[in-house]
Amino acid sequence: MDEKRYLILAEDYSGDPHYGKTARGIIHYGLTPVVALLDSSRVGEVQDGVPIVGSVEEALPLGPTTAVVGVATAGGRFPPKWRELLKSCIAAGLDVENGLHQFVSDDPELAELARRHGVELRDLRRPPAGLNVPTGANLGVPARIVLTVGSDCAIGKMTVALELDRAARERGLASVFVPTGQTGMAIAGWGLAVDAVVSDFVAGAAERLVVEGAERGGELLMVEGQGSITHPAYSGVTLGLIHGSAPHVFVLCHLAGSTEHEGFPGHPLTSLPELVDLHERISLRARPAKVAAIALNTRRLDEGAARAAVAAAAAETGLPADDPVRFGPGRLLDAVLDALPSGLSL
Amino acid sequence: MDEKRYLILAEDYSGDPHYGKTARGIIHYGLTPVVALLDSSRVGEVQDGVPIVGSVEEALPLGPTTAVVGVATAGGRFPPKWRELLKSCIAAGLDVENGLHQFVSDDPELAELARRHGVELRDLRRPPAGLNVPTGANLGVPARIVLTVGSDCAIGKMTVALELDRAARERGLASVFVPTGQTGMAIAGWGLAVDAVVSDFVAGAAERLVVEGAERGGELLMVEGQGSITHPAYSGVTLGLIHGSAPHVFVLCHLAGSTEHEGFPGHPLTSLPELVDLHERISLRARPAKVAAIALNTRRLDEGAARAAVAAAAAETGLPADDPVRFGPGRLLDAVLDALPSGLSL
Repeated sequence: MDEKRYLILAEDYSGDPHYGKTARGIIHYGLTPVVALLDSSRVGEVQDGVPIVGSVEEALPLGPTTAVVGVATAGGRFPPKWRELLKSCIAAGLDVENGLHQFVSDDPELAELARRHGVELRDLRRPPAGLNVPTGANLGVPARIVLTVGSDCAIGKMTVALELDRAARERGLASVFVPTGQTGMAIAGWGLAVDAVVSDFVAGAAERLVVEGAERGGELLMVEGQGSITHPAYSGVTLGLIHGSAPHVFVLCHLAGSTEHEGFPGHPLTSLPELVDLHERISLRARPAKVAAIALNTRRLDEGAARAAVAAAAAETGLPADDPVRFGPGRLLDAVLDALPSGLSL
Repeated sequence: MDEKRYLILAEDYSGDPHYGKTARGIIHYGLTPVVALLDSSRVGEVQDGVPIVGSVEEALPLGPTTAVVGVATAGGRFPPKWRELLKSCIAAGLDVENGLHQFVSDDPELAELARRHGVELRDLRRPPAGLNVPTGANLGVPARIVLTVGSDCAIGKMTVALELDRAARERGLASVFVPTGQTGMAIAGWGLAVDAVVSDFVAGAAERLVVEGAERGGELLMVEGQGSITHPAYSGVTLGLIHGSAPHVFVLCHLAGSTEHEGFPGHPLTSLPELVDLHERISLRARPAKVAAIALNTRRLDEGAARAAVAAAAAETGLPADDPVRFGPGRLLDAVLDALPSGLSL
């Protein structure tokens, strides 16, 4: 079997809006075909055209080559019951791709089992060797750089970057999506998980990604954001990514109706106007960046309420706003292109 | 030999204001006696009462037990010529303590040499196992938390925390210095290098440190800051530390006369009033923190100019300002204690 085909492992998590985002991203935006999704709590259902199976054995007739871990757990560790699941994948001859912080290839039992069955264990979040602080190459990248930022985690920063990238390519622009996390990497087939590098080197890792995005032909780079500058746990990743990727403009993402950091009760979100101001003022002095538009995730609202929420966000911030998944990315892309500095040809 | 005595390794760097800060911090604030400083470019000189030697052999009669790496290089790697230096320390029977990102105990040749000579290689920046995101324990720590922040790296954030801690203890307060980097750890004998942990866990590591600071008896915690929220390379560490350590107040440090990030030409510093505002607005919504005072490093100025610079910083920000090293930490400590929330007894 030469072509990669995914079995997505999402046991207990496939329906979760937060922890299931990896599975949904791979199905919806990925370049690798998905033959099945494994979640024994939802056997027989179909998600986005992909059948849900209850075991590896049930998936094998569909021809997967690779089991990809399709969940994002807090802290990045495997739930205990996943050990047997991973062993059954390896024993069935599937390669394993894993984006959690807990590396499967460091587990002696799994590594030995993989060796015996001749399969490969790939830990997407393992940082490459030789990372360091930024060299200044970020400011010399011959591309216009767009970074999605947000009021919280897991509200659609990756999706917005993917939608903007797709829309830009459909308009004939040389756009490249720049993956900065495990799901984006599984989707695009390259990248670097900036949340898994030594914290001193986050900005250096982000610089490396925009350099590579330009080397891959990107004249317009749509960089996947991470976390939020106001997040009680992940803000360090976010700010390092902002300073290392050196964007020309931001797109600020928000989940309509959300008022508190998901999973961190007692930590209220910051308002959109305040976030616009904070991002613009904390952007690199050597490359001041404006927020070009608000990307609103309206999945909790009906259509009328969604349109009202988009209008309210626009009124509140004075910026173009839209839900690019629900209403299409065209207006946000227009706003981004308008906000980019002139002088670079696209 | 039961009691630890340091030989500080600072070959080529002891006189450098930036890279030599580890050596100076250990000499000036450390609990471990220092018998000599090794820098073959300054043999025969004396620094802060410590003789400078040119080789390990020359230091041995002074009775060191441990060679501590007393430099902080950009990127945290050893200059190539240090390999022979480390080998000569190990061969002479000295333990080695190292705070660079490049771990000596991972080097097969050095590890084998250490085994043969029965000495220990301790990598201070190796993160402890089991780090994770914050649990919320930071907001429950029964102590008042002070964090030093700054306009740039290597301008005195550690020193200011140490001076405030010493002054508070002299007033009978149960103050504990909380080390967050390699030099602070070598000085205090505990801690965790937050710049060396996986970036997702910076805030979690900072939370662990303030919890431990309180367990060590601190009712007032003076937390060593790192980097700057506007630094082009290290801002991620800084913001994660801010959100994870959950300070009640900040002390903002600045090197008088400095206008650009050291080592990052083309990256101008942000003004003090703007930094005050940004820190206060980016502090945790669940624990809003004010800047209590400006700690000005006036080492480049004569006394008259230093007093004028202190007055100018106070006028510019409307906050108490002083150089705690030059003029004593009393005024800054007064300002910090005034700014702390009441209701916690010290």
